[in-house]
Amino acid sequence: MSAVPSTVPPTAPPTAARGICVFFTGLSGAGKSTLAAALAAHVETARHRRVTLLDGDVVRTHLSSELGFSRADRDLNIRRIGFVASEVVKHGGLCIVAAIAPYAQARHDARQIVEAFGDFALVHVATSLAVCESRDAKGLYARARRGELAAFTGISDPYEAPTDAEITIDTGSGSVVDALRQLLAHPLLAHLA
Amino acid sequence: MSAVPSTVPPTAPPTAARGICVFFTGLSGAGKSTLAAALAAHVETARHRRVTLLDGDVVRTHLSSELGFSRADRDLNIRRIGFVASEVVKHGGLCIVAAIAPYAQARHDARQIVEAFGDFALVHVATSLAVCESRDAKGLYARARRGELAAFTGISDPYEAPTDAEITIDTGSGSVVDALRQLLAHPLLAHLA
Repeated sequence: MSAVPSTVPPTAPPTAARGICVFFTGLSGAGKSTLAAALAAHVETARHRRVTLLDGDVVRTHLSSELGFSRADRDLNIRRIGFVASEVVKHGGLCIVAAIAPYAQARHDARQIVEAFGDFALVHVATSLAVCESRDAKGLYARARRGELAAFTGISDPYEAPTDAEITIDTGSGSVVDALRQLLAHPLLAHLA
Repeated sequence: MSAVPSTVPPTAPPTAARGICVFFTGLSGAGKSTLAAALAAHVETARHRRVTLLDGDVVRTHLSSELGFSRADRDLNIRRIGFVASEVVKHGGLCIVAAIAPYAQARHDARQIVEAFGDFALVHVATSLAVCESRDAKGLYARARRGELAAFTGISDPYEAPTDAEITIDTGSGSVVDALRQLLAHPLLAHLA
C-alpha cells in the first residue's frame, strides 16, 4: 500500500538508522496513550530523537475524520495509520502508534507494510476489562453499559487479543516506569533505552 | 496539526539530514505526476535515497477514500497530505507530492506544517489549460466539457495560481529532462542533483 512502488529494494541499514514502529493495541482505558506518550518523551529527551506519535483520537481527527466504528471503518483507520507509519519507518524514523485496533487482520496488515522497510513491535496493553472499566476516565464504559454507545470495544464490539505481540504489558499491576523499563528491555527497542 | 506536540524544538540539521517536501501543483494533465515520478526515480537511482511519493490519485485511494471534490473535501485532502509530508520531513526524509491543490490557503497550510521541520518547495506546473485540455490523457476534460464531471478544476472549478512558488515549470515547452534540470538547479533541491 506504499503510495507508489519504490525502485529501491528494502535493505537493512544499521540499527541506528533503521526505522521502527511501536504499535500499542488494547482496550479503551488500558493505558495505551499513557505508555505511548511516556515512550515518546523518553526517546525525545534521552535519545534526542524525533518521534511521530499517532494517537488514536488524534488520528481520527486528522486522517480519518469521516470514519465511524464499523469493522470496515476501523480497518480503514488502521490501514491509514499503517501507511503513515510505513512511510516514517522508510526514512529511518520512529513511529509510535496507540490505537484500539481490535482486529488481528488489520494489525497484521500494518505489520506487513511496516516490515517492508524496518521493524515492527506490537505491544499488547493487556489491562483487564474490569480494570479499564473501573478507571473509565472518559465515562465511555458507563455510556456503553447504558447502551448509549454502539460498537464499543469490549462491551458491544469484539477485541481479538493478539497472539503475535512482541511485548505484553498489564498496567493493572506496576507503574508506568516499570512498563517503560519492560519496553526498553526488548531487543527491538534496546537502542532507544 | 502534528499528531501530538513534540517536546523537541525544530532545529536545523545539516542539509544531508534535513528533510524536504517538493510539492507539485497544477491543473489535471499539467504533468505533475510525470515530473514527480521523474524526480523520485532520479533521487532513488542517483542518490540512493528513499522517497515518499504522494501522488494525488493514490492518496485519494489510501488516505482520502471518502472525500469528494467540494472545497471542504479538497482542503481536507491537502491537509492530510501536509500531515504525512510533515512527518516524513520531520525524520529527514524526502516527500514528493503531486496534487492539483487548487486553493492557495490549503497550499499555505501545507507549507507551514512542513516548514516546522524542514524545507518546502512549491513547484507550479504552469502548463496552460489549452495544452492540458489538448492532451486529455484520461478523457476527463471532454467529460467535463460535456457537463458529466462537476467541480472540474479549470473548467467548472477554480484554480488559484500560486504567487509563492519556488519554481515554475511549463511542460508545454521543453522536455522532462529540461524540467528535471530546472528543478535540481534550485538551491533547495541542489543536494538531490
